[in-house]
Amino acid sequence: MDNSPAVAPPRRLHARTALAAESAFSVMSRLAVQYGAVNLGQGFPAGSPPDFLLEALSRQAGTADQYTAPAGLPALRGALAQDLNVAADQITVTCGATEALHTLADALYGPGDEVLMFEPVFDIYRPQALLSGARPVLAPMTLAPDGWTPGLDALEALVTPRTRALLVNNPHNPSGHVFTRAELERLVALARTHDLWIIADEVYDELYFGEAPAPLRTLAPERTFTVGSAGKRLEATGWRVGWIASPAGVAAQIAGLHQWATFCAPAPLQAAVAAALPLARETGFYDDLRRSYGARMRLLASGLRSLGLDVQTPGGSYFITALAPGLDPRHLVEHGGVAVIPGRAFYAEGTAPDGLIRLAFCKPPRDLLLALERLERYLQA
Amino acid sequence: MDNSPAVAPPRRLHARTALAAESAFSVMSRLAVQYGAVNLGQGFPAGSPPDFLLEALSRQAGTADQYTAPAGLPALRGALAQDLNVAADQITVTCGATEALHTLADALYGPGDEVLMFEPVFDIYRPQALLSGARPVLAPMTLAPDGWTPGLDALEALVTPRTRALLVNNPHNPSGHVFTRAELERLVALARTHDLWIIADEVYDELYFGEAPAPLRTLAPERTFTVGSAGKRLEATGWRVGWIASPAGVAAQIAGLHQWATFCAPAPLQAAVAAALPLARETGFYDDLRRSYGARMRLLASGLRSLGLDVQTPGGSYFITALAPGLDPRHLVEHGGVAVIPGRAFYAEGTAPDGLIRLAFCKPPRDLLLALERLERYLQA
Repeated sequence: MDNSPAVAPPRRLHARTALAAESAFSVMSRLAVQYGAVNLGQGFPAGSPPDFLLEALSRQAGTADQYTAPAGLPALRGALAQDLNVAADQITVTCGATEALHTLADALYGPGDEVLMFEPVFDIYRPQALLSGARPVLAPMTLAPDGWTPGLDALEALVTPRTRALLVNNPHNPSGHVFTRAELERLVALARTHDLWIIADEVYDELYFGEAPAPLRTLAPERTFTVGSAGKRLEATGWRVGWIASPAGVAAQIAGLHQWATFCAPAPLQAAVAAALPLARETGFYDDLRRSYGARMRLLASGLRSLGLDVQTPGGSYFITALAPGLDPRHLVEHGGVAVIPGRAFYAEGTAPDGLIRLAFCKPPRDLLLALERLERYLQA
Repeated sequence: MDNSPAVAPPRRLHARTALAAESAFSVMSRLAVQYGAVNLGQGFPAGSPPDFLLEALSRQAGTADQYTAPAGLPALRGALAQDLNVAADQITVTCGATEALHTLADALYGPGDEVLMFEPVFDIYRPQALLSGARPVLAPMTLAPDGWTPGLDALEALVTPRTRALLVNNPHNPSGHVFTRAELERLVALARTHDLWIIADEVYDELYFGEAPAPLRTLAPERTFTVGSAGKRLEATGWRVGWIASPAGVAAQIAGLHQWATFCAPAPLQAAVAAALPLARETGFYDDLRRSYGARMRLLASGLRSLGLDVQTPGGSYFITALAPGLDPRHLVEHGGVAVIPGRAFYAEGTAPDGLIRLAFCKPPRDLLLALERLERYLQA
């Protein structure tokens, strides 16, 4: 046996590993643990999922442990069909919404293609487009002190013959913007004029504080892929059960690509989610969630305002953006004991508004209050 | 709202969806259900996982439901480090071995590159290489009536300056071949001479019936990526907890690419596997598995031989190949009530030996006996 360290290490990894940098979210979660900071960075609930989800998992134990079909467990496809008002054969269950978006990137575009998305942009969209070989094209959202506006004229001006798809996140992360019906109709008109696919990342579809966001598939069923997440809906971001509702007629090809990426989503968790999704509707879980998150959002927003920050009240998602000019999130987590995400994590190239930060309020009120206290002390020092 | 069906469907999906055909395994599992056939096709155990795994899941309930770091839950990375005798920071936990292999394809090769693999070839290797942009290059394994031999001279002759990696499945699916130490040493020498990465798909590492397969990472630690699977090890193929043990120094880049594919593996199942892996060793679970599967393998092999088939006794995996010239697996599942995988599923282009079939023996003995009975009746008719 020759495992001598004298053997030269082999040639380098493929160039696309240049996209493999640790995300700002992972970095901040790691630093939050290291420095004992309150973590308002990465978007995951601090607590456990609701009892009805854990009980569903316990009830299903031992019933679904082997491969499901790549498209998903029939019971879950059925539950989703009912929940989303589509046909069961339009559903592909994936290992979280991240895999759903990755599979769609592979299925819809490649080298020479362009995909439109809004900036600030959720951090996975650009590397996923680049991994597929396509070019992400960013249309700016405009920041006024009290809120965000998607630049629809700017978006339209960026369409070229190479544009294949429009990737819309609604409610939008990190801005919290909920697209109005008029904005969505304009996006649909633009997609139809230029024959674009629409990828509707609607993982926060049940997390809104004013008017409910309209699902894009109801406006453009022939070209919209809806992406959703049991993890976001049911407070279990680590479960990796997401889905794609495809336009009629193409779901088999989507499931066919997904089979080479992960084969299928975790079977016992699929079974539990299948049982829990109807319960979430019946028991008013989403209403409770909106009430509870709405109260926490207002607590954090008013606290930040009382510290003198410009705060953009979100219409949905569990994120708030604020302007704290001069604040360095890296210094804050190390010396102030609060983790937030720097705005530049959502911008391609140093174009983030000065002092923009994103804070997650899917944390217990006591954590929000502690973070506000620490932030006050840090800003005064 | 305009969702008139008169709107034209949009442009086509990307050309790579040509790779999205339903796999022979999914087709056969679907047909087995449809025709009430005994399913010796797809490789998943018929029963539940062992109690100690389900109990671990139950004990961990509610403790790990949010995102883990992309590299995996620390407890699982630690358990794997001990199990595989590598450092914990070499481990990346993935959504099953399928995602592990997909991430490695993206990390190691791309357009203009070639990757060597043996034929018959596990069905995901070729599309995964093609999706990365690389060309899969197939070296033949030779079939004698009583067993398979990897063509090492043929493999060496296929190396070109574009060859980047050697993908080795040991124990090998579908052939059941366990590479001898001499064969592995020759592969390592070849990889070192031509500076190739080695991807060692060792998901059946604990399923062998003669000599234990040597892990390739022990022979070439500087260039070997080991791929493993809790689903295969612990009889829970639907759990989607797999792993990559990378050579020292490159694991962070592997985890960085994996984060864009699925972000992380299912957290509650990671926690359960972390608790179960040491128990599997302590309780002699793998020894029991080898005994039980060995008995079933011999039952199926002798049964097939008594029907007049040439059977290749496997050294590992839970598959047997056999020659049944003229047998049509599609006709068999519909009219004979037994699902097997046609040999051509493992060959690029119509080059499969006439009548080659693969049968899975990870099923209860009564199913194996029923399949043999039905096969006898079918072959007589």
